[in-house]
Amino acid sequence: MYAFSDDFRAGLTDLMRWRRDVRQFRSDPVEEALVQECLATFSLAPSVGLSEPWRIIRVRAAPARAAMLANFQDANARALAGYDGEQAERYASLKLSGMSEAPEQFAVFCDEETGKGAGLGTASMPEMRRYSVVGAITLMWLHARTRGLGIGWVSVLDPALVCRDLDVPKGWSLVAYLCLGWPRDVSLTPELETKGWEARAASLHIEDR
Amino acid sequence: MYAFSDDFRAGLTDLMRWRRDVRQFRSDPVEEALVQECLATFSLAPSVGLSEPWRIIRVRAAPARAAMLANFQDANARALAGYDGEQAERYASLKLSGMSEAPEQFAVFCDEETGKGAGLGTASMPEMRRYSVVGAITLMWLHARTRGLGIGWVSVLDPALVCRDLDVPKGWSLVAYLCLGWPRDVSLTPELETKGWEARAASLHIEDR
Repeated sequence: MYAFSDDFRAGLTDLMRWRRDVRQFRSDPVEEALVQECLATFSLAPSVGLSEPWRIIRVRAAPARAAMLANFQDANARALAGYDGEQAERYASLKLSGMSEAPEQFAVFCDEETGKGAGLGTASMPEMRRYSVVGAITLMWLHARTRGLGIGWVSVLDPALVCRDLDVPKGWSLVAYLCLGWPRDVSLTPELETKGWEARAASLHIEDR
Repeated sequence: MYAFSDDFRAGLTDLMRWRRDVRQFRSDPVEEALVQECLATFSLAPSVGLSEPWRIIRVRAAPARAAMLANFQDANARALAGYDGEQAERYASLKLSGMSEAPEQFAVFCDEETGKGAGLGTASMPEMRRYSVVGAITLMWLHARTRGLGIGWVSVLDPALVCRDLDVPKGWSLVAYLCLGWPRDVSLTPELETKGWEARAASLHIEDR
């Protein structure tokens, strides 16, 4: 039977507080056993209809890495062009991906056409499959942090190009591009807050109906 | 400084294993302090550009509850009509929502038009805002379980109708309808597996590039 102590609960809250989106990685490798341990959390994650629609491409070869980095650089240049003046300067000063250094990189997809789960729970909300993939990534993010590892989720990418360049099946859609490695710094404060881009909201938006 | 022990890590893995999608709730209420404690995890969650796009409607009043339940019943009837023979019988035997009994219910939305975060990280993947909401829900799901509480994520709903019936602002999209309460049973096995609908995959789908 399960039971979780106050100590465990305090640790879990600490873990949630210490989890960061990491973009500054040391370049030293991550032991293969640790990589596999992180990936194993996917198999504990919830998924709509038990469809387990997550599909993982481990991006290792130099040409694949180069294509992903070029994709980020182009998308980042386009995003920068959407800002003006001081905000553009601030955007340009942010490091939004650790793709040049992170020793491990994963493109995580959703198989929109999986037969697993027989479509249960997806008829009116097919996006539930993608949301299941996000939940699994969130679990891995937490587990990695307990090992001192950092994860950075890069979303400044053209997802159709990622699918093309990694040559994935037609029914797969990109959910996340993840960098995994040892973080350079460890901080309670999100980097976007340190750099003056945005701060945590003072309160949660809740209304009653 | 953070440091997580082997004991803590083992507890975290147990927590991930024990987390279930709960559809069978006891009807007794959840103390308000516990509800607030669960909701507080949202403020620890990652979000693209620190946009914190989650918006929560606590569904309490009888008319709102009735509209949500009717929405589920209609969507569930439509989903059932998509199955034939034995699969239809099996689908009909599943309890896919605890909306009739769960003492606490939340509709969780994404504010697609929030100015917070100034659009960072969403230019090429605007769905990142919704994914941020999913990550926050995943944290709450884990925290609730440490308290013995269960969460059930209902996706058999017409999301546009939920938005209309709860009268939410135009830019909000439904991400999840959550039931929260004390579970009737506690099990390591997903209910869909017990009922013969689907089983966990034997292995994770990983390919190299």
